[in-house]
Amino acid sequence: MDRCGAYLDTMRSTAPLVQCITNFVAMNVMANVLLAAGASPAMVHDAEESGEFAAIAQVLTINLGTPSPRWVEGMEAAARGAVAAGRPWVLDPVAVGATAFRRGLGARLLALKPTVIRGNASEILALAGAEARGKGADSADTVAAAEAAAQRLAEGSGAVVAVTGPVDFVTDGRRGIRCGNGHALMPKVTALGCSLTGIVGAFAAGQPAFEATAAGLAFFGLAGEEAARRAAGPGSFQVAFLDALHAMTPDDLDRGAKLEAA
Amino acid sequence: MDRCGAYLDTMRSTAPLVQCITNFVAMNVMANVLLAAGASPAMVHDAEESGEFAAIAQVLTINLGTPSPRWVEGMEAAARGAVAAGRPWVLDPVAVGATAFRRGLGARLLALKPTVIRGNASEILALAGAEARGKGADSADTVAAAEAAAQRLAEGSGAVVAVTGPVDFVTDGRRGIRCGNGHALMPKVTALGCSLTGIVGAFAAGQPAFEATAAGLAFFGLAGEEAARRAAGPGSFQVAFLDALHAMTPDDLDRGAKLEAA
Amino acid sequence: MDRCGAYLDTMRSTAPLVQCITNFVAMNVMANVLLAAGASPAMVHDAEESGEFAAIAQVLTINLGTPSPRWVEGMEAAARGAVAAGRPWVLDPVAVGATAFRRGLGARLLALKPTVIRGNASEILALAGAEARGKGADSADTVAAAEAAAQRLAEGSGAVVAVTGPVDFVTDGRRGIRCGNGHALMPKVTALGCSLTGIVGAFAAGQPAFEATAAGLAFFGLAGEEAARRAAGPGSFQVAFLDALHAMTPDDLDRGAKLEAA
Repeated sequence: MDRCGAYLDTMRSTAPLVQCITNFVAMNVMANVLLAAGASPAMVHDAEESGEFAAIAQVLTINLGTPSPRWVEGMEAAARGAVAAGRPWVLDPVAVGATAFRRGLGARLLALKPTVIRGNASEILALAGAEARGKGADSADTVAAAEAAAQRLAEGSGAVVAVTGPVDFVTDGRRGIRCGNGHALMPKVTALGCSLTGIVGAFAAGQPAFEATAAGLAFFGLAGEEAARRAAGPGSFQVAFLDALHAMTPDDLDRGAKLEAA
Repeated sequence: MDRCGAYLDTMRSTAPLVQCITNFVAMNVMANVLLAAGASPAMVHDAEESGEFAAIAQVLTINLGTPSPRWVEGMEAAARGAVAAGRPWVLDPVAVGATAFRRGLGARLLALKPTVIRGNASEILALAGAEARGKGADSADTVAAAEAAAQRLAEGSGAVVAVTGPVDFVTDGRRGIRCGNGHALMPKVTALGCSLTGIVGAFAAGQPAFEATAAGLAFFGLAGEEAARRAAGPGSFQVAFLDALHAMTPDDLDRGAKLEAA
Repeated sequence: MDRCGAYLDTMRSTAPLVQCITNFVAMNVMANVLLAAGASPAMVHDAEESGEFAAIAQVLTINLGTPSPRWVEGMEAAARGAVAAGRPWVLDPVAVGATAFRRGLGARLLALKPTVIRGNASEILALAGAEARGKGADSADTVAAAEAAAQRLAEGSGAVVAVTGPVDFVTDGRRGIRCGNGHALMPKVTALGCSLTGIVGAFAAGQPAFEATAAGLAFFGLAGEEAARRAAGPGSFQVAFLDALHAMTPDDLDRGAKLEAA
C-alpha cells in the first residue's frame, strides 16, 4: 500500500455515483463528505426505486442507523439490485447488537453478500455473533478485541471487513492491514463513521475492495488530522474537515497515510 | 429588474411562513437558509396535516429528493391545499428523470399547477419530456441546452420555470431573464439547489412570480459570491454563506445583482 | 441553584445514553449538541424497537416536529417503555397548536406522563388548552404570557414545565425559576430549541428534574452567549456554539448562569 494516493486519484477522476441508504442523522453530512472528496452522492432509499437505481449507481452503501420496516424493504431491494448489476455494496451495521430488530436486520443484509462491511468494534463483534458491549452507536469494545471476530466474519461472508477506531483494522480473511490515521475529536462529531462508509464505497467503485478500503480509511483519517490542527472544538472541526477532504491531493495522502500490514 | 432589492425588502418585512416538503438531506440546510434570509420555514409533510397547513402558510415548496409513497400522498394533499387557498407553490423536481417512480411523480405534481418550477438543466429537460443525461441530483446538461425546453414547459404548464446552473435562465413563456450570480463552490455543497427553491418560494409569497424568482436567484447567488471570498473550501463556504444571506441588504443586492433580459 | 455547575459535572461523568425521537430537521444538530456537551445520543424511533430501546437508554426525549402516523406509534411505544423502566422522559411539543393532528398527538403524549415538558410560549399555551398565536415552530406569544398556563400544566400533569424564550421560565407547579442566559442569534438557527430539549434530557438523567432543567437551560444559553461573541452571523454562530458547549467547564457555568427564583 505505498500507492495509496492512486486510489484517491482514480476515485476523483471517475467521480462515482454513490447510492446511499443511510440514517436521518447522517444524510446531510455524508452527502457533503462525498461531494468534498470528489464523488457524487445520491440518497435513494425507497423500495419503489432503490433496486432500479442500484443499476444506475456505481456503488451502493447501506447503513442501519434509523431503520423501519419500509426502509428495510428498500435496503433489500437495493442490495439485490446492486448484486444483480455486478456493483459492489458496503454494509454499515450501526448499533446492530442493540435490539432484536437490528440483530435480525443485520443477519438479513449479511445474507445479501456485501462487498465490504465497516463498523466499530462492538458492531463487528455483534455481527460476527460474539458478545459485544456497545449500547448505542458508540463502541464499548476495542478494535484489538474485535480483530479475531473480523477475520471470522470476513472468512464466513466473503466480504472485506473494516473495524474502525483509534487504529483501524481491515481484513479480507487472508490479509490484514492497520490504519493509524485519525483524531480524537472525530467521535465527538455525529455521523462521521457513517460518512466514512460512503468514502469506502466511493473508493471501492471499480477498484479492488481490500486496498480501496484501506486507502479510503487513510484519506478520511488524514483529513481529520489536518482539520484538528485548525479546530477549537467539534464545531470548527466539522468545517475544517470538509475543507481538508476537498483540498487533499494524492501526494498529500501518499505522504501522510499510516498504513501497515497486520 | 433594477429594483431587485425591493423584493428582498418586502420578503423580509413580511417574513413569510414557508411550508417545505423537502428531502431528508436538505431539511436542515433549507431551514437555516430561510431563517438566515429572513423567512420563517415550517417542515410539514405528512398527509395527516400537510393540506390543512398549506392554508396557514403563505407559500408551499415541494421537493422530490427522497420520495416514498407516503410522502407522495402528503405532497399531493399539500399542493391541492395551496391551490385551494390561493397560495403559490414551487416544484423542485430533483432527479426527476432517474427512475420510473420519479417520472410518474413529476407528471402528477405538474398536473397540480405549480406557480414556479426550479430545477437544473437535466431535470427541466426530463420534466419537459426531452432527453436528459443527468443520473443523480447533478446535471449533465447545460442551461443553454435546456432553454427551449424551459420555455415549452412554461407555456404548457402556466408556471414560471427557472433553470439554474452557472448562468440561470428564468421564463414565464413570454419573457426571459438570465442571472449570472453564483460561485463554483456551490455545487460542492449538498442541498443548496433545494434551499434555493425555498428562497424562490419566500420571494414569491405575495409578489409577482417571474420577478420574484429572478430576484431570489440573484440574492442567493450573490450571497454565494460573498461567501466564496471568505471560504477555504466547501466547509467554510457553508458557514460564510449563511452569514452572507443574513447580512445582505437590499442595497447590496441592487448593486450586485447580475440580471439581464434574455 | 448556586451549584449549577455540579449538574453539568454529573452529566458529563455519567455521559447518559439519550434516546431521541426528534424531527428530520433537528436530528443532526441535536446529536452534535449532545456529543459536544458530553452525552451519548441515540436516534431510535421506530415502533419495532423504540420501546425496547427505552429500557436501555438512561433518558428519552420526544419531539413532535415532523410527525406521521408511523412515528406516533414509535413515540407512544417509547414513552410507555421509558415509564415502565422508570426512566425520565422529556416532551417537546413543536407547533402543537398548528393542526388537528398535532393537537391530538400532544394530548396523547401528555397522557403518557412526561417528566419534563419544554416548549416555547405558544406551544405551552396550546398544550395547556389556552389560546395561542404561534403558527409554525416560532412563538408569537411572550414567555410572561405563558407563565400561568405553564404552572397550570405542571400542576395538572405532574411534569416540570419549561417555557423558553428571551428569558426562560421553569416550574414544577410549586416552585418557579427564571433563566436569563441566551442570545438573539439563537432563534435564527434552526433546531436549537429541539437540541435544548436533548440537553434538558441529558441533565435530567439521574438528577432531580426541576433543578436539572434549570441547569440545562443555563448551560445552553451561556454557550450561546459565548458563541455570539465569536460569530458574524447565524452560520459562524452554529460553529462557535458547538465549540462553546464542548469547552464550557462547571466553573464557567457557575460563574455565568443567570438563574433566579420566580
